[in-house]
Amino acid sequence: MADATEKPLLAITMGDPAGIGPEVVVRAWSDARVHERCRPVALGHPEILQRAIKLVGSTARVRVLDSVTTVAQLGLDPSDQSTIPCLPVGSDDVLDAPAGKLDARSGQAAYEAVVLATRRAIAGQIAGLVTAPLSKAALHAAGHHYPGHTELLAELCGVDDFAMMLYLPQAELPHSRAGLGVVHTTLHCALRAVPGQLTPGAIAAKARLANAVMRDGFGVAEPRIGVCALNPHAGEEELFGDEENRIIAPAVGMARADGVSAAGPIPADALMVRARDGEFDAVVAMYHDQGHIALKLLGMHRAVNITLGLPIVRTSVAHGTAFDKAWQGCAESSGMVAAILAAAELARRDFRFI
Amino acid sequence: MADATEKPLLAITMGDPAGIGPEVVVRAWSDARVHERCRPVALGHPEILQRAIKLVGSTARVRVLDSVTTVAQLGLDPSDQSTIPCLPVGSDDVLDAPAGKLDARSGQAAYEAVVLATRRAIAGQIAGLVTAPLSKAALHAAGHHYPGHTELLAELCGVDDFAMMLYLPQAELPHSRAGLGVVHTTLHCALRAVPGQLTPGAIAAKARLANAVMRDGFGVAEPRIGVCALNPHAGEEELFGDEENRIIAPAVGMARADGVSAAGPIPADALMVRARDGEFDAVVAMYHDQGHIALKLLGMHRAVNITLGLPIVRTSVAHGTAFDKAWQGCAESSGMVAAILAAAELARRDFRFI
Repeated sequence: MADATEKPLLAITMGDPAGIGPEVVVRAWSDARVHERCRPVALGHPEILQRAIKLVGSTARVRVLDSVTTVAQLGLDPSDQSTIPCLPVGSDDVLDAPAGKLDARSGQAAYEAVVLATRRAIAGQIAGLVTAPLSKAALHAAGHHYPGHTELLAELCGVDDFAMMLYLPQAELPHSRAGLGVVHTTLHCALRAVPGQLTPGAIAAKARLANAVMRDGFGVAEPRIGVCALNPHAGEEELFGDEENRIIAPAVGMARADGVSAAGPIPADALMVRARDGEFDAVVAMYHDQGHIALKLLGMHRAVNITLGLPIVRTSVAHGTAFDKAWQGCAESSGMVAAILAAAELARRDFRFI
Repeated sequence: MADATEKPLLAITMGDPAGIGPEVVVRAWSDARVHERCRPVALGHPEILQRAIKLVGSTARVRVLDSVTTVAQLGLDPSDQSTIPCLPVGSDDVLDAPAGKLDARSGQAAYEAVVLATRRAIAGQIAGLVTAPLSKAALHAAGHHYPGHTELLAELCGVDDFAMMLYLPQAELPHSRAGLGVVHTTLHCALRAVPGQLTPGAIAAKARLANAVMRDGFGVAEPRIGVCALNPHAGEEELFGDEENRIIAPAVGMARADGVSAAGPIPADALMVRARDGEFDAVVAMYHDQGHIALKLLGMHRAVNITLGLPIVRTSVAHGTAFDKAWQGCAESSGMVAAILAAAELARRDFRFI
C-alpha cells in the first residue's frame, strides 16, 4: 500500500459469472463493516455486475474505472457506499454464457479476473485480492489447467511453498484470540494414500506458514499451533500406528526449533474441541476430512480460504460456485463478507510471506 | 420387565471405585428426571457409595438390598428419592485401594459389578444396566483381559455381532427426531489399516444395528441411516480412492435390501452437518476420528455409549474414569444422567436385539 494510514484497497473478483459469485459480491457491498475496513473494487464484466445488482434489488450504481493505481488516484468518495467501482475484465462473450451452467466463456472470464487482480497485487497497486468462487471444470474448459485458484495464484506469484488455510473468524469462535486457522498437510488424495504422503518436512512447513499468518497477519503474539495425530488416540503408544512417533513428533520438533509454538501430535478429536475453546490459534490437519469435519460443524459457511506462502494478500470464500443456486437471488454473502474482512485485516498489517 | 406399566428397574454400576464413577452416580441420583423415568439401583460396595455421598455433600441414605428381583418385590418407595438402594458387590479389599490410582482391587470390584448386573439383566430381574467407567488397565491388572466393557458384555451375553454406538440425546440436537447415533465400522486401529478392514458385510451390519436401535429402541419410524464415505468428496468419481464404489456403495445396497433406509456413501464432512441438522437419525462412520471429531464437537460430555447387538439394554457414559479428577468433588454427572435416561427409554420399549 502506498499509504498505510488509509483503508486498504482490495480487489474483489466476481468469480465464475455463471455461479453465485456476482450475487455474493453485490450483497457484500451493502455490509457496512466492509466499508469501515477497506476500499473494495470489483473485478469483472460491468454488465454482469449490473445484472447481479438487479437480481438482488440493490440501488447501487456501477462506476467503471479505467485502471487501478492507488486509492487516492482513483478519486473514490469513501462516503459513497452505494457506488460499486468496477475494473472491467474480459470480453463481451461472457454475456451470452448461460447462468448456472459450466461454460468455457465463463471460465475464461473468471480466469482473466484472477490474473489481473494478482498482477495488480504483485505490482503493489492493490493491497490484496478477495476471490469469489470459480469452477475448476470451467477453467479447464477454457484451456487453463489448474486444480484450482490456489495453484494458479502460486504460479502467477512464482512460489512453490504454499498452502490453503481455512480460517474461521473470531466472530465464529468467541473463545479464540483471533479466530482459528486450519491448514491441511494432504488434501485431495485418497485416505489410503495419506500415511505415505506425510513427511516431517511437509508438516513442519505447514506449521511455519500457519504461525506466520496468525502472528504477522492477525497480530497474535506467539500463536499456539496444534498438530493433529494421524491415528486414533494418537496411536496409543503405537498400539494403533507409529506415524505419531516416526513422522509427526519429529515435525513438531522441527517447527519448534524454528521458533513456532507447536504442540502435538494431539488426538484430532480432542484437539478440535480444544481449538474451538480457544486453546490453539491454528491447527495442522493431516488429511482433508480431519480438518473439514470440524470446520463444517464450526461454521464453514463463514470460513475464509487464505492462501499462505504468497507475496500478496489473498483470501476467498470457502464455498463453491453453487451453479444449482446461481442467479436465483437466494445466495448468502456472509462468507464473502468474512473473506473481505480477513483480507482487510491482513492488508492493514501489510502482511506477506515473501 | 415383569410389568411394562411400571418404571423400569435399572442397575447402575459404579465403575472403577478409584475413578469418578461413584461421584457421578450419586450426583445423577439428585436429578429429578432420573426418578421420573426409572427406578435406579446402584451396584457396588455400599461403603464406596457412602464415601461418594459424603464427597458431594448429599443428604441421601444408602439402603443395602439383599437381592434384586422385581421392583415390586424390592418394596422400594418410589417417592423416596433421597434413598439410594444398593446391591452390594465385591469384597472389602476395595476399601483400601487408593483413590485416583490404577489398582487391581478396584479393577476387580468394577468387574464384579458388571458381571452381576449383566447376569441379572439376562435373567430379566432388571430392565437394563447403566455402567460408570472402568479402567481397562485395572481390569487387566485384576486378571480380566478384555479390551473394554463392550467385549466383556458381549462374552457374558454370548453374542458375536455387536457394536458400540455413541448416541447424542435429542436435548443436544434439537433438530433431530430422537437424537443422533454414530456407529463406527472400525475403531481402535491405525488409520493406515482402515481401508483394508472395510467390507460391505461389516458396514451393512452396522447399518442394520443402528436401524434396529433407532427404530425399536427410540421409536423412530423408518430411521434414516447416513453412511460415511472414506475418502474426501466421497472420492470424487474415483479421483481420490475407489472404496466408495468398491465397498461402501455395495454395503448401502445390502442394508437397503434388508429394509434399512440407508443413504451413502456421503462425504463425511457434509454428512455430519446434515446429521446435526436433523436429516439423519444415525451415521455409520468408517473409522474412529471420522465419528469422534463430530461427536466431541457436538457435545461428547453428554454422549451415551449404547452397546448394540445384545439381548439386554446396556448404556454407559462416554467418558473415562478420569483418575486425575477423581474424588475431588468436581466431577460432572450430565453424561451419567443422559446414559440413565437413554437406558430408561430403551427399557420402556422393552428393546433388545435378540
